Amino acid sequence: MDIVRELRSRLAADAVIAGAEIEERHLRDFLVAAPPGVRPVAVVYPRSTADVAATLAICNAHRVPVVPQGGLTGLAGGATPMAGWVVLSLQRMRAIEEIDRQAATMTVEAGVPLQLVQEAADAADLLFPMDIGARGSCLIGGNVSTNAGGNRVLRYGMTRELVLGLEAVLADGTIVTSLNKMLKNNAGYDIKQLFIGSEGTLGVVTRLVLRLFPKPRSLATALCGLPDYDRALMMLQRARAHLSGALTAFEVMWPRYYFHATEGLSRRAPLPQGHGVYLLIEAMGGDRVEDEPRFARLIEGALEDGIVSDAIIAQSLKDARDLWSVRDAAGEIGRSFGPGATFDVSIPTGELGKFAEVLTERLTARWADADAVFFGHVADANVHISVRTGAKPLPLHDIEEIVYGTVRDWGGSVSAEHGIGLLKKPYLGYSRSPAEIEVMKRLKAALDPRGILNPGKVF
Amino acid sequence: MDIVRELRSRLAADAVIAGAEIEERHLRDFLVAAPPGVRPVAVVYPRSTADVAATLAICNAHRVPVVPQGGLTGLAGGATPMAGWVVLSLQRMRAIEEIDRQAATMTVEAGVPLQLVQEAADAADLLFPMDIGARGSCLIGGNVSTNAGGNRVLRYGMTRELVLGLEAVLADGTIVTSLNKMLKNNAGYDIKQLFIGSEGTLGVVTRLVLRLFPKPRSLATALCGLPDYDRALMMLQRARAHLSGALTAFEVMWPRYYFHATEGLSRRAPLPQGHGVYLLIEAMGGDRVEDEPRFARLIEGALEDGIVSDAIIAQSLKDARDLWSVRDAAGEIGRSFGPGATFDVSIPTGELGKFAEVLTERLTARWADADAVFFGHVADANVHISVRTGAKPLPLHDIEEIVYGTVRDWGGSVSAEHGIGLLKKPYLGYSRSPAEIEVMKRLKAALDPRGILNPGKVF
Repeated sequence: MDIVRELRSRLAADAVIAGAEIEERHLRDFLVAAPPGVRPVAVVYPRSTADVAATLAICNAHRVPVVPQGGLTGLAGGATPMAGWVVLSLQRMRAIEEIDRQAATMTVEAGVPLQLVQEAADAADLLFPMDIGARGSCLIGGNVSTNAGGNRVLRYGMTRELVLGLEAVLADGTIVTSLNKMLKNNAGYDIKQLFIGSEGTLGVVTRLVLRLFPKPRSLATALCGLPDYDRALMMLQRARAHLSGALTAFEVMWPRYYFHATEGLSRRAPLPQGHGVYLLIEAMGGDRVEDEPRFARLIEGALEDGIVSDAIIAQSLKDARDLWSVRDAAGEIGRSFGPGATFDVSIPTGELGKFAEVLTERLTARWADADAVFFGHVADANVHISVRTGAKPLPLHDIEEIVYGTVRDWGGSVSAEHGIGLLKKPYLGYSRSPAEIEVMKRLKAALDPRGILNPGKVF
Repeated sequence: MDIVRELRSRLAADAVIAGAEIEERHLRDFLVAAPPGVRPVAVVYPRSTADVAATLAICNAHRVPVVPQGGLTGLAGGATPMAGWVVLSLQRMRAIEEIDRQAATMTVEAGVPLQLVQEAADAADLLFPMDIGARGSCLIGGNVSTNAGGNRVLRYGMTRELVLGLEAVLADGTIVTSLNKMLKNNAGYDIKQLFIGSEGTLGVVTRLVLRLFPKPRSLATALCGLPDYDRALMMLQRARAHLSGALTAFEVMWPRYYFHATEGLSRRAPLPQGHGVYLLIEAMGGDRVEDEPRFARLIEGALEDGIVSDAIIAQSLKDARDLWSVRDAAGEIGRSFGPGATFDVSIPTGELGKFAEVLTERLTARWADADAVFFGHVADANVHISVRTGAKPLPLHDIEEIVYGTVRDWGGSVSAEHGIGLLKKPYLGYSRSPAEIEVMKRLKAALDPRGILNPGKVF
């Protein structure tokens, strides 16, 4: 039997879409489109784990590749289909099954949008801390499959650390249910780790037990100008020690980024241009009365000791939003900076300052008009970079060679939080040894012997 | 060539011990001895990762099983050898290679005792937070291989969350080096997760990058008496919210435990007998001046609201130690309680009170003289249990069936933090489904196709 007919024989009438009725949006993630003319053989919209299992069993029998899709907000091509593949969209599996206030957990299906997870936690007077710009459209199963990061990793960890339990379907349709709700569970291998961050290549995530936290009761935010990156490192140590577990964000912006995110966009700069680096620092605590003065003392002490040259402490939520708007302008700086190549890499925190210097030198040595802006979650070792060269068209491959080559020289990672997908696959070997990649391949062969799950992604 | 001769031909003269010279201590962990008369064929003491790789390559070629050993403080038989096996003791690999203050990491060999890791972090004005009673003798590689827990999991996570990078040697001698120092790294599968908590069955951990934290500047401790377990749950919610990230311990002791740990041992009880449950609560923060009053307000508010009936707040480090001594008496209560069967299980926090009631009922229904004491890291869902029945000899198997059967009924874990090893292997299926165990077996076959690494452990 033809695979589309077989899928239709097992799933609800509206669950299998084929041919011209396939929506264009399934052909790409946010950055990477399928090659022109490429069409999947079908898009399947399961409503249950059993539907996912039936779909995978059929595709496995037919040896037809499957690409799982969430909100299609990925930035590496992990969800992009190839010709003849089946697209498995989790968007209709959107039940919030349980919130357990005592265990501080939420059990959800993989197709719940991140924002709905956040709102459901909030309604239960709890916090689901993971947050990224795509919150309204990304689905929680996609966040887990890509181990999403974001702005609060410093305090709450990557998505991996927010998953207590997980259900996944293997390539052959086997359902593996591990919906653990307990912080401590050493009963055998922690197999959920396999499915987190493996970009749909080892199994399809169908349900999740997420870890919730108490809602913070205080928020403190400041923007600081510092003489140099070394002072930012000193400030990080102070902030970690003084704010204890309350430090939620430590975002460093290098001066070229700061310029393009303020004056470059014809916006008022909260602090004048000219500082060595800019720091956006945020803390969330449990005590409205004490936390803000404590935060202010940290900033004032750093000013007195010459670690910070100038600072603005937010006096209201509106102030805080205004200070964040400089950091949040990352998606818009292209209007000032011009078209550029963008990167999401990690470098050990202590060496990030020197890395930025050397990379800028290497780029300008190659292209006299090259410019690079740096900004990011420095405490997590994560920096984002935009590079322009003045050359037309943008010599993307040559820029990548220089950026990823420099990352390799520093022992960094070619993907801090966006994943590998298709886009970074040529550079995986810059951050992982042949032995590491060989282990990945052995895992893939063990769990998906016919290679039907998102083949050719990651490695 | 005979395997001992081959090992001797590749390793230093003092690195391979065979025959009568093998020390007795290598025949057992803290709880589980090898069967009488069982002797390993050799004990190998590698000094480097290359030594480990050479040993494994030789054993793999000879199809001789290998058991990795750390400090031999395990409680489940994970490190116990069988007849004809090679013991691989990591105890000579004890270099602390680097402390990176900016990245807040420490790179160590697997054979460094936990206490030396803690002391080295302390000397660098940082904290390695994992702490268990065996700190002086357990080795960090063993802590990682068993994903050790302890008293501070609530705040800092299990050992798994404290490992940023790892080097392991596979069964065939392949060295897989992933010494990542960065909080964010999504370059392919996170393969280090495989080796954490898999009890030496998938690879031998040789080096580690550990995550360090700022040293806390304040310590607050209290012992509280509460009317019932539900009040303890209410107190947990308050403590999480008010103390924000500073809550480090939330240890609940049921009244029978409290009795045996105080009067039963002829020790003064800090609070009188008769409360419904006892709670030891601890917080560590960043501000000496404010943290203690904040903690005191939490306790006082709970007293006013009837959540807590009575409380003692430590006024000195000595006070704090005295309060902890009731909880730390767990190893001694046998002198009052009598010989019993002990358990380390997890149950979702909200249901632990009811679980303790039902389990006690089931035990006393079976044995009129049965008694059970409960105590543990309730916020982590982890409870320790001792059971006596009055019957002689202790009907261990029947007790296990009732305890683990009740754990299964509650969807709990038969091992919260001690691992499976040999001792809990018959009960793995009480907490893991056949599909989950099948995935574990597939991973084992993929990474250790000849099954030489600690075979027969875990499953």
